[in-house]
Amino acid sequence: MTGRMIGMTATRTIVCCTEVGPALAGRDVERIATVFKALGDPTRVKLLSLIAASDAGELCVCDLTEPVGLSQPTVSHHMKVLVDAGLVQREQRGRWAYYRPSTEVLVSATRELIGTQP
Amino acid sequence: MTGRMIGMTATRTIVCCTEVGPALAGRDVERIATVFKALGDPTRVKLLSLIAASDAGELCVCDLTEPVGLSQPTVSHHMKVLVDAGLVQREQRGRWAYYRPSTEVLVSATRELIGTQP
Repeated sequence: MTGRMIGMTATRTIVCCTEVGPALAGRDVERIATVFKALGDPTRVKLLSLIAASDAGELCVCDLTEPVGLSQPTVSHHMKVLVDAGLVQREQRGRWAYYRPSTEVLVSATRELIGTQP
Repeated sequence: MTGRMIGMTATRTIVCCTEVGPALAGRDVERIATVFKALGDPTRVKLLSLIAASDAGELCVCDLTEPVGLSQPTVSHHMKVLVDAGLVQREQRGRWAYYRPSTEVLVSATRELIGTQP
């Protein structure tokens, strides 16, 4: 489980009768929960899925409203949650906002949490 | 992006001016959101982290209360959310419940969502 030590703060705790290995520390726990919380909503899962699957590597907000069947303000709100969690990057170009995925944020959160490579 | 097609239902949608690639379909979206929602809480991130890092591959509920500083009923409630999401398996042995991680559930959700293998 040494792989779990890379790039994170680790603590080792002895409790009860079983030795508990290096677990995530407070700040990492909060950061990782924020990433997963942003994805705890079907609409946001769908939106990130659309962006990650885009051949262009990015999608305009105008591309996202129809697939999820929601208004542009509602889509923009969901996208802000994804941006704030670091899962998506936003760029304003003229009238439209464009989004591209930061997939390494989700990969890293998963790897830090369970010590496995997805 | 053909890797994203494996083991999931995919749809292809043409919208607006950009071709949107194969994205997750409804049932997969709901399932994946449920997995991430269970981890959208710092206490549950910490609990899964402890179990995943355990040298024994499992931990008793009695091992989990002290590291998170919560009562056993509260820990059991959080563990039920993780079990219901498929992230952890529970086994009752005598007085205590023991938990072991089903890490493949999180790995699979991450892979299906962003189609990335780090």
